Amino acid sequence: MRMFRNDYSEGAAPEILEALVATNDEQHPGYTEGDPHCERARELIREACGRDDVDVEFCIGGTSANIVGVTGMLRDWEGVICTRDGHINVHETGAIAACGRTVLATRDADGFLSLEEAERVRRFQTGTGRHMTRPAAIYISNTTELGGVWDRERFDAICDWADSCGLKIFLDGARLGSALASPAAKGLTLGHIAKRTSAFSIGGTKNGMLFGEAMVIADPDLKESFPYLVKERGGLLAKGRLLGVQFARAFEKDGHDEALYWRLARTANECAAHLREGLIALGFEPAGDAPSNQQFFLFEPTLAERFAELAGCEIFESRPDGRQLTRFVCSWATRLDDVEELLASAATL
Amino acid sequence: MRMFRNDYSEGAAPEILEALVATNDEQHPGYTEGDPHCERARELIREACGRDDVDVEFCIGGTSANIVGVTGMLRDWEGVICTRDGHINVHETGAIAACGRTVLATRDADGFLSLEEAERVRRFQTGTGRHMTRPAAIYISNTTELGGVWDRERFDAICDWADSCGLKIFLDGARLGSALASPAAKGLTLGHIAKRTSAFSIGGTKNGMLFGEAMVIADPDLKESFPYLVKERGGLLAKGRLLGVQFARAFEKDGHDEALYWRLARTANECAAHLREGLIALGFEPAGDAPSNQQFFLFEPTLAERFAELAGCEIFESRPDGRQLTRFVCSWATRLDDVEELLASAATL
Amino acid sequence: MRMFRNDYSEGAAPEILEALVATNDEQHPGYTEGDPHCERARELIREACGRDDVDVEFCIGGTSANIVGVTGMLRDWEGVICTRDGHINVHETGAIAACGRTVLATRDADGFLSLEEAERVRRFQTGTGRHMTRPAAIYISNTTELGGVWDRERFDAICDWADSCGLKIFLDGARLGSALASPAAKGLTLGHIAKRTSAFSIGGTKNGMLFGEAMVIADPDLKESFPYLVKERGGLLAKGRLLGVQFARAFEKDGHDEALYWRLARTANECAAHLREGLIALGFEPAGDAPSNQQFFLFEPTLAERFAELAGCEIFESRPDGRQLTRFVCSWATRLDDVEELLASAATL
Amino acid sequence: MRMFRNDYSEGAAPEILEALVATNDEQHPGYTEGDPHCERARELIREACGRDDVDVEFCIGGTSANIVGVTGMLRDWEGVICTRDGHINVHETGAIAACGRTVLATRDADGFLSLEEAERVRRFQTGTGRHMTRPAAIYISNTTELGGVWDRERFDAICDWADSCGLKIFLDGARLGSALASPAAKGLTLGHIAKRTSAFSIGGTKNGMLFGEAMVIADPDLKESFPYLVKERGGLLAKGRLLGVQFARAFEKDGHDEALYWRLARTANECAAHLREGLIALGFEPAGDAPSNQQFFLFEPTLAERFAELAGCEIFESRPDGRQLTRFVCSWATRLDDVEELLASAATL
Repeated sequence: MRMFRNDYSEGAAPEILEALVATNDEQHPGYTEGDPHCERARELIREACGRDDVDVEFCIGGTSANIVGVTGMLRDWEGVICTRDGHINVHETGAIAACGRTVLATRDADGFLSLEEAERVRRFQTGTGRHMTRPAAIYISNTTELGGVWDRERFDAICDWADSCGLKIFLDGARLGSALASPAAKGLTLGHIAKRTSAFSIGGTKNGMLFGEAMVIADPDLKESFPYLVKERGGLLAKGRLLGVQFARAFEKDGHDEALYWRLARTANECAAHLREGLIALGFEPAGDAPSNQQFFLFEPTLAERFAELAGCEIFESRPDGRQLTRFVCSWATRLDDVEELLASAATL
Repeated sequence: MRMFRNDYSEGAAPEILEALVATNDEQHPGYTEGDPHCERARELIREACGRDDVDVEFCIGGTSANIVGVTGMLRDWEGVICTRDGHINVHETGAIAACGRTVLATRDADGFLSLEEAERVRRFQTGTGRHMTRPAAIYISNTTELGGVWDRERFDAICDWADSCGLKIFLDGARLGSALASPAAKGLTLGHIAKRTSAFSIGGTKNGMLFGEAMVIADPDLKESFPYLVKERGGLLAKGRLLGVQFARAFEKDGHDEALYWRLARTANECAAHLREGLIALGFEPAGDAPSNQQFFLFEPTLAERFAELAGCEIFESRPDGRQLTRFVCSWATRLDDVEELLASAATL
Repeated sequence: MRMFRNDYSEGAAPEILEALVATNDEQHPGYTEGDPHCERARELIREACGRDDVDVEFCIGGTSANIVGVTGMLRDWEGVICTRDGHINVHETGAIAACGRTVLATRDADGFLSLEEAERVRRFQTGTGRHMTRPAAIYISNTTELGGVWDRERFDAICDWADSCGLKIFLDGARLGSALASPAAKGLTLGHIAKRTSAFSIGGTKNGMLFGEAMVIADPDLKESFPYLVKERGGLLAKGRLLGVQFARAFEKDGHDEALYWRLARTANECAAHLREGLIALGFEPAGDAPSNQQFFLFEPTLAERFAELAGCEIFESRPDGRQLTRFVCSWATRLDDVEELLASAATL
Repeated sequence: MRMFRNDYSEGAAPEILEALVATNDEQHPGYTEGDPHCERARELIREACGRDDVDVEFCIGGTSANIVGVTGMLRDWEGVICTRDGHINVHETGAIAACGRTVLATRDADGFLSLEEAERVRRFQTGTGRHMTRPAAIYISNTTELGGVWDRERFDAICDWADSCGLKIFLDGARLGSALASPAAKGLTLGHIAKRTSAFSIGGTKNGMLFGEAMVIADPDLKESFPYLVKERGGLLAKGRLLGVQFARAFEKDGHDEALYWRLARTANECAAHLREGLIALGFEPAGDAPSNQQFFLFEPTLAERFAELAGCEIFESRPDGRQLTRFVCSWATRLDDVEELLASAATL
């Protein structure tokens, strides 16, 4: 049975892989500098963003993108505000601190950075001048760590607040495809994100590429720093063309209404929605309202363990009542048949 | 005409690419943790090293490998001795300093770390106790920055000295295939390197893979640190299996006398030797004695410029007499026909 | 009227100042290396600790002591567990992160690191292996950020737990004099701290010296690192003898039952206790039970403001009910008359 | 006999010590924030610089001043050009690298940063774009590491060059008193340095204070960063008033033609010149032309050893001919009688 463990369990989507094979023998300059595939990818992403004044750069993976994006916005004594479950606060082995910057975590528990908590942290950190780390940026991710999807209204509210405080805005888009392809995005678009953030990443790894993230940069400081930082921090790919080939293929429409990137994400979301409905119909209890390619359910420990064995589900945390927060992930590679097969098995547990 | 600009101008060697395509649809755990391809690659590399007590880890690229390998051997106040043209001293945008450690450069000018200079630096740095950075490791690369190849005697001499001073030994093997496949290696083998170094990298990027370096680790401190550091520094690949697939394929013998990795390197070296002889026969002057896949020649500026246009050659430096140190690089993808074509054009310059 | 703002508002205690004046014209080697005053101070502190196998080093100030002590116990990918109000988490402008290490804050709200919270953080951080910062040390301070005093039982419990988890123990003793001179210490002594911690500081700045902290180091790693780190991090004093002169004077008994260091602390504590009782007698409400030289009270905003003007009190935070957590600090320089004068004024507010 | 080992062997000049004693009982806010002595010192230094638009800040010692000044001018991927014997390159245990920045050393051997070498390094480092650390500042010291004194012409030339390249200028003035009080300064003044540098330090430690450096900051970036960095890097003194008291006293003219700071430096220089002449008259060979408070001589090893025992002289390096470069240092505390006593002994060696 197909695993529902993660969205980076397979290799690349067939179209992406074909593009890599087709261009394999070409000779190109390295480091994403001046090869035609990277140039084309930049052009397509700028078009998709509706801005030709942003820089589009590439790096090897999500941690690299976060390291370079976030630390490139901060001076040594500045910090970034994010939720306590933010990827940079928890899951990257202290990568931001390793680069000498401070993560300022709020107490938000649902994955979304709230105005109240962000403002509380900002006020606290600026209360005694230079004796505390000064907040200079916010970090949000879309989808959130718990599969949540920012809608336009919520997104605009946090951006308005950040702007009013002079804070830069970084959006981690490791799962941006799933987020923007979700009906829950309610008007939030790539173009709107490009308009309001200082920089954001467009994740390739979790949406059908072998690896790679594109960074869209509006912030002039980061425009200057990014090329140096990505090299210094080990995130620059020698065969940079591989990133160009993959992102160019993903953002070509090639006769469809929308580019491959969004079609892949839509597949993942549809499978996830089907899985959610199916599990609910079987009487299982969803945890929260995650309208993207990750679905969370609450199971008794024995049941959680069975789903882990059956479908590779990860257990995120134990709730006070003993139930296990369990995650199912669909990807571009999941088919509705895979979901049906899982549901059939689930019915027997 | 094929360019002789670099050994990372193409994609992957056909056998490597096929292996990636063949395994693309498999589902595996991420992060090089527990997928069968990484396990197989580890096994093959341990076998090739003749040691089953070393750790074999993978990371995304050469800068990552150097960052993690070198800084993982140093405490905050310790430094690494290397030649002034060492990759970590010059070409990585201060990556070691960015991680808070100091590079202690010798005055060696030919790419090889000499006993005399290494000892001079060590003695200087330890002369006033804690007021100077204390050397704790040496960094050498094979091939060197100028295409030089360490033979066993020279290698043993620097290792003996480092051992006698209590310094750890890191060998950057970004072009290790070419180095060990060269006749100039005179008895230096993978197994011998594995026996004497604290850690070393086996470069994939410049020898037929899409990307990736394997790290062979004997040093117990680095064994413990590497898995954390590679994640913290952004060098861990989510789809880790890609590294396993490539390195397993490269180190399988699959019916040949030697593994693909060495055959690819041998091809590059043979083309480079042929190119060298051909250019010398045409009356051009080689710079030094580089018995690997990189060849250096000294040209008058106009001629250097023509070779740059014709074959993508890079100009490394201007010599005091005005001549340009110019580099030709062959790779696994270069064919003898490509060399002949270049020589034919060179004859008309 | 004397201010009750802080314990570093004055210069040095008269005895300390006299010692500096008396030795001013002597010539000594620099950097705390080999001058007789530093040697004498080391000897006296070792005696006071009842251990002759600890290293005693000096540095310029409290932030330096914390930077060197804490980061010297951590590798790049390791973190230190402390309370959320811990000085290193809040009041040092990200100094630990600036050195590339991560502070792992618990949710403890009363200044004491609790077993439950420490264990919760430890378990969380080690749950997914190398994807999270690994805890390697705990940081506690005595007195705590809120003036709390660790008693022997509580201290032993956290040390037992840290030992059982293989975590190092750092105790920030910026106000150690006040803590150990307090009746609330209940059997916790300098010797006992020296027996159980990896390293701890003995604060001079806040207990009658012009500046300076002594570090008592049992941890062999830190013994080796400290001398280098304190230089590298800018915490080494050129005229190191000044630290020796002050600490030697403070730890001489010179005919008394106990050394000057403790007598100075006792003065501060006694004034603080008198102040506390007096304010309570006047009907004001103390916040918590701080048996050291800092006293916290809860006032309505207007009243808090008046105390700020009158006595230089700092307002620490606004409570949900609108009351202000207000701090009074006594020092070695405070006299009972000063307290009486304050109480007299307070009675009229 | 008085030692000629260093200019930080004694405590403070009597006037400075008196000022500390006289103000010891005053109560003031901490951290150099708002106490009248720091304010007065700032005012006097601004006056002495002839600029009221510079910020004047204080920190604990010379390494702190260099860490904060230099790293505050550099982004993570930028470097500072200095001579190979520059204090930050050699004598501070990698302090700049520890803060993540790169020192780019020239091959200058006489302590002065030359135009040729500075330009060579700059051109080399900017030749391949983001693959190398980009120079963003120069570091010079006055006096130099070898006691050299910058004259106005030489200083203007390097400043002109730095300006033309867009590089910031940091001057380490640990021995600025001696430098500017030297006849060799030929027109270089405090005011001129304040006009041309981005920031510079005025050393207290080596010119009669217990400790402390003043930083004069014209660079707007550093103006904003300094207060935070000095705290984050552990260089902020809790009893900040001590820095104010000392610098205010040093820069008051109190009835003399020039401030104490310059008179102390002049004493040191005069003794040093007398010593130099005396030793030359005795037939000893000076090394170079150091017109400041440090004097270098070349001695046969036995003789060098005798001077080391006799006067605490430090041996800087062994010359190829076996002679020892030996340093004599005079300070504000040296009297002409001390020099005579040394010369008398020297005559018998």
